[in-house]
Order: sequence, then structure tokens, then C-alpha cells
Amino acid sequence: MAYFDAASAAPLHPVGRQALLAALDEGWADPARLYREGRRARLLLDAARQAAAEAVECRPDELVFTPSGTRAVHAGIEGALAGRRRVGRHLIVSAVEHSSVLHAAEVHEAQGGSVTEVGVDRTGAVAPDAFAGSLRPDTALACLQSANHEVGTVQPVAEVAEACRAAGVPLLVDAAQSLGWGPVAGDWSLLTASAHKWGGPSGVGLLVVRKGVRFAPRGPLDERESGRAAGFENIPAVVAAAASLRAVRAEAAEEAARLRELTERIRTRVPALVPDVEVTGDPERRLPGIVTFSCLYVDGETVLHELDGAGFSVSSGSSCTSSTLTPSHVLRAMGVLSEGNVRVSLPPGTPAEDVERFLTVLPGVVAGVREKLGAPVPAGGVRGAERGDEQSGAPAVNAPVVDTPAVDALVVDALGRRCPIPVIELARVIGDVPVGGTVRVLADDEAARLDIPAWCEMREQEYVGEEPADRGSAYVVRRIS
Amino acid sequence: MAYFDAASAAPLHPVGRQALLAALDEGWADPARLYREGRRARLLLDAARQAAAEAVECRPDELVFTPSGTRAVHAGIEGALAGRRRVGRHLIVSAVEHSSVLHAAEVHEAQGGSVTEVGVDRTGAVAPDAFAGSLRPDTALACLQSANHEVGTVQPVAEVAEACRAAGVPLLVDAAQSLGWGPVAGDWSLLTASAHKWGGPSGVGLLVVRKGVRFAPRGPLDERESGRAAGFENIPAVVAAAASLRAVRAEAAEEAARLRELTERIRTRVPALVPDVEVTGDPERRLPGIVTFSCLYVDGETVLHELDGAGFSVSSGSSCTSSTLTPSHVLRAMGVLSEGNVRVSLPPGTPAEDVERFLTVLPGVVAGVREKLGAPVPAGGVRGAERGDEQSGAPAVNAPVVDTPAVDALVVDALGRRCPIPVIELARVIGDVPVGGTVRVLADDEAARLDIPAWCEMREQEYVGEEPADRGSAYVVRRIS
Repeated sequence: MAYFDAASAAPLHPVGRQALLAALDEGWADPARLYREGRRARLLLDAARQAAAEAVECRPDELVFTPSGTRAVHAGIEGALAGRRRVGRHLIVSAVEHSSVLHAAEVHEAQGGSVTEVGVDRTGAVAPDAFAGSLRPDTALACLQSANHEVGTVQPVAEVAEACRAAGVPLLVDAAQSLGWGPVAGDWSLLTASAHKWGGPSGVGLLVVRKGVRFAPRGPLDERESGRAAGFENIPAVVAAAASLRAVRAEAAEEAARLRELTERIRTRVPALVPDVEVTGDPERRLPGIVTFSCLYVDGETVLHELDGAGFSVSSGSSCTSSTLTPSHVLRAMGVLSEGNVRVSLPPGTPAEDVERFLTVLPGVVAGVREKLGAPVPAGGVRGAERGDEQSGAPAVNAPVVDTPAVDALVVDALGRRCPIPVIELARVIGDVPVGGTVRVLADDEAARLDIPAWCEMREQEYVGEEPADRGSAYVVRRIS
Repeated sequence: MAYFDAASAAPLHPVGRQALLAALDEGWADPARLYREGRRARLLLDAARQAAAEAVECRPDELVFTPSGTRAVHAGIEGALAGRRRVGRHLIVSAVEHSSVLHAAEVHEAQGGSVTEVGVDRTGAVAPDAFAGSLRPDTALACLQSANHEVGTVQPVAEVAEACRAAGVPLLVDAAQSLGWGPVAGDWSLLTASAHKWGGPSGVGLLVVRKGVRFAPRGPLDERESGRAAGFENIPAVVAAAASLRAVRAEAAEEAARLRELTERIRTRVPALVPDVEVTGDPERRLPGIVTFSCLYVDGETVLHELDGAGFSVSSGSSCTSSTLTPSHVLRAMGVLSEGNVRVSLPPGTPAEDVERFLTVLPGVVAGVREKLGAPVPAGGVRGAERGDEQSGAPAVNAPVVDTPAVDALVVDALGRRCPIPVIELARVIGDVPVGGTVRVLADDEAARLDIPAWCEMREQEYVGEEPADRGSAYVVRRIS
């Protein structure tokens, strides 16, 4: 059994566990009280703040503990926007930020603020020039993650921070995915993080606000944590969080090299072992432990279920594994395939054998899912386009109504069908389309908007565009080869 | 060493500690995930919610876990006000609510809402009629604690809930101090609580919103906890909180009787052992473990310090122990003495010997503080008025400038002097005032406004009133006896 979803949550580090146990005895009292139990709690809280500040490379009085990374992000964005309200109400975020950032931006917009979403390239990275170009005289705050949580791509934070500094705009860095590996370089103004991502306990986030940054905490007054995080301090968890951070940092350099080699194995060998796979994210500028790939003609929920059965816990940005029925906003912003999406994020200490076993199991799992779905059988290698006359092995499950109103315009009706069926149906009929001719795929599943163009890119066919239809949309594809 | 501040925070119950340890291993993963670690976390979270709901006597889907009691209060008040915004923007709170409630009310007022603060009697209880009388057609929400956190007085929640129900107004009950002792009776609509008050861990609050209550969560969208508490669930702490609640409830009836007897000893014996003491709060309708008293001519910070040195951890509502330099709003609303205030709140399991030792130590501690401050030596018993010619033992430390512009109007200048000095100076000169004559105490310490009238009440002198002065206020007292 191998847990490969460290980017969601990591189990508590043994050092953190020990610290938690000690602090349950010593740190349960109110640190605002003057008696011995209160003073002891205060000492523990101060020491934890000092340790966390060292790891972040900030002053202790710039750092407060929040009840979660999400709360740190919400409080950080709200407070910075309110603090600079006189400057303006423009907020900049990258399109691939964590949902907590994007949801805070939605609230800002609903309250009359304006938001610019800076796009990313196919690797998931923002371009520093594009980010800098979105800065305006009325920009109150800019937000950029240190590294992406779904594909592991590291963002050019230092360059963006420099541009923001030059424009006098504070930059908030969501460092949730990277803080365990090292401090965030560059002249940022605010920083947020989440302890359970680095092997700390649940219930602890960090919010750092550099001296000199205008900041006006929102919400009801509360004296605790410099007025920036209301509620009784969770000192045992805070102590465990700081101890875990120190412990993972001590192992970080060595472990980063080891995990990077393991994820490199997945990056290079999965496309060789599994046909029709797209590995996403930057191959070089990336976190050590995260690798993400998408498999054509595969349903994300089923592949997760099968991998779970085989002893692997991974996550997916496919629409069918989310409650919103839309593919991950990160994959969408990157313009890459979302169907059959698998994110592998290795916790520190993952044995190489687990990765090897994963590479052994994965091809069979994907092939099995494809067979069940009646997906086209690949002709030869990853980039080989299947041909219609080779579709034989798998029975055509739920064959679509194929209508031919004109020779030039084959129509595939995939209305009401969920990802990956619309793409599978497209692949099944492309052989019937004359070279130069088009096919229209009618679909109302959100994922089709992302996955049909991605399929065209992978298959070297031409994606003509999307047309409105009575129900859903018509996605038009021209056969090139 | 005896910890007598359970109303601030209680150490983790052994059952909660065990549950926490188990859940650290089993409940660290994301409960929204489909793999085994996620499913296991989800099962633990569901079971904890079920157990907490049973203790509250609500449905599990009415209860969410928040990161603290304060957050539960903030989210509950904001959400209920927003949900009933069409009805109106009037909010009712009692004057003795926890600061988290009053601070949320301040935010509401700053945003254009209106707030009615319902006063309390000298025991700290609201009158149901007065509370009901403040209900208006535009009242969106009413808030009443189940019991007061500083003096232990139990509020008439069931009667108030009935009046609110009849008016169609939801009642939010802050049950932080009472939930460990039992469910809150009456037809309330929302309820909040805090786990570390009942022997659960820090980092867990409860917010209950009855089905049918209009509720619109504020802040950025987040799918966790029914959208009512953003951020990654702290499942180990939640499991420990639910287990602790179940454990303290199992012991509640027996322990309540035992602690009630111990606090009754303090209630009855402290006034006999220590002269010039006012015991506050309702003698009957009160929590089992809390007893509060104030000592004339005593500085709260020093008495806490001395008690700490003698091995007792207690808290105080005196102004000199708070960072705001104002006496506790609870004591102020009750109109009782705030100087030398001591709150004793016994955790379950407190041995009777500790209380006996406290009763042995307290008289000497108070006498020592009074001697240092040069307080008048009491003539005979608690209600005995000291006479000027009996002030001999203690030297007059920092004697005030006593000015006599007219025979009828002695003036004591206590400007710049902190509690309890203004009252001490008043007591020192009252013997020089002819019966029927008045004395003016000039003071700029906030506590004087509360403590000079309270002294008059205790000493059976007449408090004439407060007059504006060049600096601070002049408090006018007429000698009656």
C-alpha cells in the first residue's frame, strides 16, 4: 500500500508527533494568562513562532499562526486588499492558484473589486513579463503561488516579486506546496502556508506579513495573534507544526534529490509504458515529489478506483472525480488533456520499490479501463493515430448515433455522455472522415471543451473551434492526417 | 499546585488524548478523497459528528466543526444575519456575552446594522421579559449565552428562546461554558461551543444551525463542512473533541454535584474569612465549577501574582490584569465591584483539599496586598465601615493631595492613579467628611466609574453621581453614616 498524495496532506512527521504529545501536557493553557500554565504556553508559542520564522526567513513578529492554510490565504488577501483600499481595488492572481486564492478573488469581485487572472503556458508557469504587464496604478495586491499544487511547476516568484516591488505593489505568495523544501526566494511581501502539507498536523497555517506592508485585518476584533487570526491559539498543533518543519527541512536537500529521481522515472517511463499519455508540468522547474499525467480515453474516477484497489492512493484533476463536474482549473488554464488525469505526489521517505511497483501496475490498469470503455486500440506507440479499420478488439459499448447530414460534416452526438466518452467517440469516427473533411462532436460535458482540443494536439488533427448548439456545444475537428 | 481556571481552558481529557493519538494515525488524510486513507478519515469525521450531535441533541447534518469557539460565534452570527438580511438588520445581544459575540456585534454595527444590548441584574442574568421586549419586526437575530463565563450565572435560555420563537426570530446560544455539563434546553435555533472548555483539544469549535433557519455563510466559498467552516478539516482534534465530550458527559452529573459543593464552600466561607469581599453571580442558578468574588482595596494583578506564587492559577476581571485597562464588561454590566476580582473555575476532578488549601491561603494573600497598598484596616467584619482615626497600622503610601475648597466639598485627587488606589483614597478620607457632607474623587482610571459606586453600595454611603472634570471625572460621594 503506497500513499502517493502528499500534495493533499502528509501524515504527521514522527518529530511533530513527539512535539505534539509534549505540548499537549505543557501548552494547553491560555498564553494570555499570567499564571504558570499560561506562561509555559506562551513560551512554547513564542519558541514555535521563532522556529517557523527562521524557516520562512522572516521576523517572528511578521508571522502569525492561523487555523489552516486556507484561512491564512483568506485573511492575507482580505487584509492586504483592505490595507491598500485607498490605492485601488485591483487584484492580480495567476490562473492556476489554489482554489482558496481564487475564491477570495471571487468575493473581492462580488464586492465591487476588479480581478485580473494572469494566464499560464502549457507547463503551467506564468510569464514574468505578462504578470508585470497586468500591474496597474490601482493594483492593491498581486498573488502568485511558489509552485503549483497539481502539476508541480515552480513559478518565477523572484522575478515577479521584483516587478511588483518596482510598481509598489505587495506580492502574496502561497507557499503551501514548497515551504517544506525551502524558503521562498525573492522580495515578496506576504506569504501563506499550511502545516499538513509539510508533515505538520492539521489545524495550522502560517500568515506572514512583512513589516511596512499595509494590512488591515478583517472580521471581528480579536487580540490573539496580532489581531490577524481570531480564536484561541492551538499551541500543541503549532508546536508540532514548527517541529515538523524544522525536521523536514533538515532532510530536505537529500530527500529532494531522491524524490526528483523517482518522479523523473515516472515522467519518462509512463509515456513509454502506457500509450496515449500526456505528461504535464515543467520537466525541469518543478517540485521534487509531484508528477502528473493524463491518459486518453480513460475515466479518472475509475482509474483512481482501480489504483486504490492495487494499493496506490493518488488524486486526479479529471472532472468525473470532482463534485463540480468540471475539470481542474489548472489543467484548463494550461490547455492540456484532463481526462484520465493522475497526480502522483510522493511523501518524503517513499521507497523506490513503491514507484517501481506503480510503474508495473499502471499499464494494466489503464488498459483495463480503456477496454471497459470501448476505447480505440492504439496502432503503434504513443503518437500513432489509430485507424478506423483497426478498431476491432474492444466491443463498441454504447455506440453513438452517428449522423451524416453532409459528406463534409459527420456529426457525433455525445450529448448527455460524460468524459471520456465524447473523446472516445471522436477517436472512433475520425477514420471515417476523409482527410480535409470535418467532424462535429455534440457534447454538453464541460471536459469536452478542454479534452477535444487536447486530443487534436496529441493526434495532430486540426481543432477548428466550438460552435453553439441547441444543447451543449458542437466541437469541430478537421482530419489532417 | 492547583489550576483553577477551567473556564479559560481545561487540559485535555485522558480519553480525548487517547482518541487524538489514534486519529493522528487514522485521520490525517483528506476526507474528500476516494482512496482508503481518505475514506478512513471520512468515517472518523462522520462518527465524531454523530457523537457531538448526540451530545448537543441535534441532527448530525446541523452541526459543523470550526477551528475554535470564537470562529463558530463569528461564522454563526454573520451567517444568520446575512441569511435574514431581508427581514432587517437588528441584532440583540445580552450585555454579558463573550467578547467574540460583542465584537461580531460591533462589526455588524460598523456595517450599518443596529444592535440592542440587553442589560442584566446584579447577579448577571437577563430578565426574559426585558429580552423579549427588545424584539422588533426587523430583528434578524438574538444572542444569549447559556451561562456566563465570568461569574457562572445561568441564563434563562428556554424562556428567551420561547419568546424569540413566538416572534419568529432565531436565537443563537453560546454554550461554551455549559456544553460539557449537558445539552442546552429550549427551542434555540443556533448554538456554538468550544472544545477546549470541556476538556477537548484546542482547535475545535462547534456551530449548530437548526434545519429551517435561514443561513448564508460569509467569506470565500469552501466546500468543506457544508460551506460553513473553510479550511482543511482537523480530524484528529475533532475526534478527540467528540470523545472528550462523551467522556465528560458520562461523569457530569456526579462531578457537577461535587464541584457545586466545593464552590459553595468558597461562596460562603470567603466572605467570612476575608473582610470587604463581594461574591458575585447568582447563588443558585449557576454553573457547578465557577465562583467569583471581588476584594475591596486590592489590585487584581498583584493578588493573581501572589496566588500564583502560592500555587493557585486563577483569573481576574480587574482592569489592571487586562491589556485594555478597563474592567471586565461583565462586572460592569452587573454593576458590581471590579477591583481585586478573582474568578475561581474548578476543572472536573479538583480535589477538595485544593479548595481547602485555597481557603487557608487566600486571607493572608489579600491582607498582604492591602497592607502594601496602604488600604484602610477594616474595623469589624465585612460590612464594618472603617473610621479615619483607626487608620494607623499601614503607612500612607503615596498619600494624595487633599484639597478643601469648601467644608462641604472635600476633593481627593487620584488622577493618574490606577485601580484600586482611587477607592483606597476615598476610604481613607471618608472619616474626615461630616455626615451629610460630600467628597469628590477626581480619577481618570476607568475602573473608578464602576468601583466607587460599588464601594458606596458595600459601605452604605450615598453615591451622588459623576461630574465632568478638566481631566477624568469627579465622582461625588455623600457620607451617610
